[in-house]
Amino acid sequence: MTRWRLTIEYEGTNLVGWQRQDNGPSVQAALESAVEAFCGEAVEVVGAGRTDAGVHALGQVAHVEIARAATPKSVRDALNFHLKPEPIAVLDAQEAPADFHARFDAVQRRYRYRIVNRRAPLTLERERAWWVPRILDEEAMAEAAARLVGHHDFSSFRASQCQASSPVKTLDRFEVRRRGNAIVLSVAARSFLHHQVRNMAGTLCLVGEGRMRPEAIDRILEARDRSAAGPTAPAQGLYLVGVDYPPERLEVPG
Amino acid sequence: MTRWRLTIEYEGTNLVGWQRQDNGPSVQAALESAVEAFCGEAVEVVGAGRTDAGVHALGQVAHVEIARAATPKSVRDALNFHLKPEPIAVLDAQEAPADFHARFDAVQRRYRYRIVNRRAPLTLERERAWWVPRILDEEAMAEAAARLVGHHDFSSFRASQCQASSPVKTLDRFEVRRRGNAIVLSVAARSFLHHQVRNMAGTLCLVGEGRMRPEAIDRILEARDRSAAGPTAPAQGLYLVGVDYPPERLEVPG
Repeated sequence: MTRWRLTIEYEGTNLVGWQRQDNGPSVQAALESAVEAFCGEAVEVVGAGRTDAGVHALGQVAHVEIARAATPKSVRDALNFHLKPEPIAVLDAQEAPADFHARFDAVQRRYRYRIVNRRAPLTLERERAWWVPRILDEEAMAEAAARLVGHHDFSSFRASQCQASSPVKTLDRFEVRRRGNAIVLSVAARSFLHHQVRNMAGTLCLVGEGRMRPEAIDRILEARDRSAAGPTAPAQGLYLVGVDYPPERLEVPG
Repeated sequence: MTRWRLTIEYEGTNLVGWQRQDNGPSVQAALESAVEAFCGEAVEVVGAGRTDAGVHALGQVAHVEIARAATPKSVRDALNFHLKPEPIAVLDAQEAPADFHARFDAVQRRYRYRIVNRRAPLTLERERAWWVPRILDEEAMAEAAARLVGHHDFSSFRASQCQASSPVKTLDRFEVRRRGNAIVLSVAARSFLHHQVRNMAGTLCLVGEGRMRPEAIDRILEARDRSAAGPTAPAQGLYLVGVDYPPERLEVPG
């Protein structure tokens, strides 16, 4: 048996999300079907982050155990062959330690939230960004974002269906950058609550519009109440950019 | 009557191209319908570049004459309202001189051709780039591109259905840059022959694969024969980035 670490890209618009569900195509089910088509083995593919319907990934990471002997390139190419025509691609396949776990070994998850801030509706970026036609003040948004960085109780940014054992998380990074009409939010943490990034993005948008001051973030965190924060930003602006592991969890003992 | 200069963005996948045709939705027809819905006037919208089916635009320019009095913002917003749900957006509307002509006054057209050079198939960039899985040597491609810059007879890169009066054109710029897995070709000229950019991109790809040497470009130009050059690269990698005019053609005499 070989345990493989897969790096996966997908366009989430027509997917029900990472996790296998009865109501439509998921990334997990598509990968499991591709593995079965490749080697005839019924496997479970375990992902680092359970992205929602409509959310995209540039570097989701998953692990899977396969008995059939294969090279990294042949695993990558065979899975891509069998994934067609789904908008899911295996960018890389690498041998992993026998006990590597894509979810539990992750020390950092990096997300990007993309806003296009202009009057004209989206064309090329439709379903790939959040269209906000009202002018946003990215400096105020950056100030609000800085107040979210650190060790906090994020209950005010947590979806009601969140299954995490604790609402206390450490946000390592939250940057706001404008590039022309695009405002890109970059966040990183060991782990996130359900909808946390989208709820933070929706709240920052209120700040950017001037409907809330950056200092209000402190009060929202203290409230520990979802209704204190802003709305949930739409899924199509969210990208799982990458997942990081300690170097020793990536090496196969030789 | 006011003549308006429009800057237009579109996602060309499901469009038959710029020009009005019987077999499907065109950018021109969509804009003319939007103008009619806005002001009840049957107009002709004249574009700077007649892009093909599947080709995208970040900054197509067009002109149209409208009798109804309106502000630039109201023209932009009204046309965008009536363009829904087509993947076409008016980024900007500006008053132009009464004799401004989007096509004949243009002094430079800028195109970008986007190649994604990796083994894994496309997901987020599907229909937005050309997927080339074989490794490309971008330095050889840049060397070939440099040989195309200047005043040449481009017959070898001209589609058989091209209606230009002369195959002699001046290519102002042809740059090749790699950014990770993406190879971006940037070209600029006063005007291009039909399929010229796609035929140059297809030929550069042969050079990048090592199937043709950069110096072969000189022989291809001399041949003045379409069959001497490489294949036509697919439409989905091509973007009309912008169109330039002399400053005095942009100003409305006060």
